Amino acid sequence: MADLSKGAAWMAGEIRPISEATIGVTDWGLTHSDITYDVVPVWKGGFFRLDDYLDRFLESLAATRLDPGLTRAQIAQALSDMMAASGLQDAYCAMVCARGTPLIPGTRDPRECGNHFYAWCVPYVHVIPFDVAEKGASALIPDSPRRIPETSVNPRAKNYHWGDFTEGLFQAKEGGFDTVILLDHAGNVTEGPGFNVFAVKDQRLITSGHGVLGGITRRTVMEMAAEQGMMPEERPLPLDEFLQADEVFLSSSGGGVTPLVRVGDRVFANGAPGPVARRLRQTYFDWLEAPQFRTEITYG
Amino acid sequence: MADLSKGAAWMAGEIRPISEATIGVTDWGLTHSDITYDVVPVWKGGFFRLDDYLDRFLESLAATRLDPGLTRAQIAQALSDMMAASGLQDAYCAMVCARGTPLIPGTRDPRECGNHFYAWCVPYVHVIPFDVAEKGASALIPDSPRRIPETSVNPRAKNYHWGDFTEGLFQAKEGGFDTVILLDHAGNVTEGPGFNVFAVKDQRLITSGHGVLGGITRRTVMEMAAEQGMMPEERPLPLDEFLQADEVFLSSSGGGVTPLVRVGDRVFANGAPGPVARRLRQTYFDWLEAPQFRTEITYG
Ligand SMILES: Cc1ncc(COP(=O)(O)O)c(C=O)c1O
Ligand SMILES: Cc1ncc(COP(=O)(O)O)c(C=O)c1O
Repeated sequence: MADLSKGAAWMAGEIRPISEATIGVTDWGLTHSDITYDVVPVWKGGFFRLDDYLDRFLESLAATRLDPGLTRAQIAQALSDMMAASGLQDAYCAMVCARGTPLIPGTRDPRECGNHFYAWCVPYVHVIPFDVAEKGASALIPDSPRRIPETSVNPRAKNYHWGDFTEGLFQAKEGGFDTVILLDHAGNVTEGPGFNVFAVKDQRLITSGHGVLGGITRRTVMEMAAEQGMMPEERPLPLDEFLQADEVFLSSSGGGVTPLVRVGDRVFANGAPGPVARRLRQTYFDWLEAPQFRTEITYG
Repeated sequence: MADLSKGAAWMAGEIRPISEATIGVTDWGLTHSDITYDVVPVWKGGFFRLDDYLDRFLESLAATRLDPGLTRAQIAQALSDMMAASGLQDAYCAMVCARGTPLIPGTRDPRECGNHFYAWCVPYVHVIPFDVAEKGASALIPDSPRRIPETSVNPRAKNYHWGDFTEGLFQAKEGGFDTVILLDHAGNVTEGPGFNVFAVKDQRLITSGHGVLGGITRRTVMEMAAEQGMMPEERPLPLDEFLQADEVFLSSSGGGVTPLVRVGDRVFANGAPGPVARRLRQTYFDWLEAPQFRTEITYG
């Protein structure tokens, strides 16, 4: 039996170790970043909000005109077979569909390619390391680069166009920050590499309504906030307003709610996570285990 | 002996058939499109302007902070070993460097990844099929998407961020056009999937100086134009001015100079390639064979 404890992949109906999961160097999924994906968290042996992640994946597929060649039920089955085989209880579980290569060699028509679906999983990924997230993280908001605008690439179709994030991450890491948040071209706060961003002001929760991925954790945050008597607002979030918030935090399938205690020079709440972010972080971990959101995996 | 006639790849010092050249699905080169590349044309058994393509590749590597782990001379050697082994006389010859995966699992720091170089070649690619290019091609300039701005991703570092081109290509193909050209957010003509764009007006040659790749064919066109007594101008090229040009054409390592005879509704020169584009197209094919630009490959 192959060792799948470092991760596994489902490719064309077969399950293999993650180290053997590859894509061709001429695949447009790579050479044109012509690919879409989604990532559902697996926690204590069950998927969290699987239906919502599948919904989003199907929306991304439609937006990018990619055909996985599988039904929704077949995709769900592939993910659950792969997770079961891997034995991983806490995991980052990715589903991907790539454009493939032209069916008639030489054509440059994206309608004439052999699209293909695959999936892979690795142990659970924290976009901010857990211990850093507990104490509150720091972020840089650089003047440049700006987030790729939605007039160029649709941010709601989950994609691998991360050149802006990567350049921003280099600046952040060199400045001693944990991560980076990008502005849009009008100076509003958008998102970062793997997360949405929230500001808390007087029991109101503000997050960008444009130019960002519709994060499932973002939605979960808005639902938790509403239950806790706070008002979620989706609208442009100018940098000034963001920096004047009571608290700010990140939301991601890779770690849930992460308080920020420093953004550039600005220190929030004396450098400790604020009460709203702390409560939402705990509620998120509670919800991860709540039966109504879970699809249990039957391990072999 | 493996069959390399469909293409070959050089990976970690070994040459293999293109069908066996792959990259891991967790490589940031794929999952973050954190990768740079270049493509030098091989024509009748020799590289064209190899030094210029290597210069640009090294500039892209520096801009994206990627380390191929090879010297310039070693890269040139890898390309020439691969070409010789493939036996291909007319080829698309790509050199690539990917971010790789974190050396410490779980980190999200792009400085801590194992970058890796590889190369691959396939039979010569025409971005516009040769027979279409001979008669003059058609292009759509859609209102949306707009080219990813250089404030988000540096277009001079050759990259795989093609989401804007792909969306544009779908619109173009559905409208019956051969290809697509994108505007910047100010309404100037930029470039297309695999090519730069020129307008000809009264013996002046205008091409965008910003928001585009510094194409080697673009440079070749400007040199040919200067030799032929025309004035090359690098500056913003508003859509109106473009549509009122005498002639318009594309430049690409995949086919040289391609006249456009139709852009949206506008038909140029009664639907036939104009004299300037035709002359430059022929001169380009002549230069491809000129000894001063060539590095001959020694086949086995
Ligand atoms: C760009 C971007 N924004 C936001 C998010 C957060 O989305 P979710 O909460 O669904 O993980 C992600 C997740 O990977 C992302 O890549
Ligand atoms: C986006 C883009 N612009 C322009 C070009 C043309 O550059 P070159 O003449 O060096 O092939 C290319 C080539 O692939 C390209 O991808």
